[in-house]
Amino acid sequence: MEGESAGVGIKAIGVVRSEFTACGQAPKQGPSEPTTSVIELHPAYVEGAADMREGDYFWVLCRFEDPDDLQMMVHPRGNRALPRRGLFTTRSPRRPAPISLTLVRLEKIKGGRLTVRGLEMLDGTPVLDIKPYVAKVDQPPE
Amino acid sequence: MEGESAGVGIKAIGVVRSEFTACGQAPKQGPSEPTTSVIELHPAYVEGAADMREGDYFWVLCRFEDPDDLQMMVHPRGNRALPRRGLFTTRSPRRPAPISLTLVRLEKIKGGRLTVRGLEMLDGTPVLDIKPYVAKVDQPPE
Repeated sequence: MEGESAGVGIKAIGVVRSEFTACGQAPKQGPSEPTTSVIELHPAYVEGAADMREGDYFWVLCRFEDPDDLQMMVHPRGNRALPRRGLFTTRSPRRPAPISLTLVRLEKIKGGRLTVRGLEMLDGTPVLDIKPYVAKVDQPPE
Repeated sequence: MEGESAGVGIKAIGVVRSEFTACGQAPKQGPSEPTTSVIELHPAYVEGAADMREGDYFWVLCRFEDPDDLQMMVHPRGNRALPRRGLFTTRSPRRPAPISLTLVRLEKIKGGRLTVRGLEMLDGTPVLDIKPYVAKVDQPPE
């Protein structure tokens, strides 16, 4: 398991269906954004969505494209007017393990079709995981 | 990119060094837990830790072992007294894409050696990513 190849073989559980087909159309993230997208679960994983309730919050992990030009120092939000910072202090999508983390609100669920608010991803983006939001462990204690 | 093999090739950025060497020794998660662990970044990624400040909170994504027995309905916290729920409403480590999500507090940083609070992972666990905690997008709006 150790080493740089440790992540090989991670499977997607589904795919994002959205109105966004080109980079730059999908700039904002977060559950207060108005746009909704659909997560289509692959058939083998639909049962795992049992007990998901509309109105609850979930983390969605997606697989970004591999970056063609990976930099360890980046301009925050791609804004060249801002000084470069260490990559791990930014949410840049261009990462060694290009996995996104987005908090979404479940608006509607019908079988393996989940309509969520806050997931502004390109159409066709692979979804790796969905986890429940648990305030006790997902917020700083103070 | 689409489909179940989309995640192939995700790289680790480092490895967890902890006192935990067997499952069951590392039960609790979260930044209010007293235990600290160390993330050792691989040399190629040390520069990405620039600007990480002690006392700040970060998300750490790790790679769990592939589950040998993947179930879509699971007992919460492995407690058989509790009725089974859909996997995606639990934080079970046995997932199709076995990636953990843990909020940690950075206690100390020295080069590529990050001492963090809240990351109770087995020694040797591959670290896939570190992201800054951003309250505005990482908390439900209400």
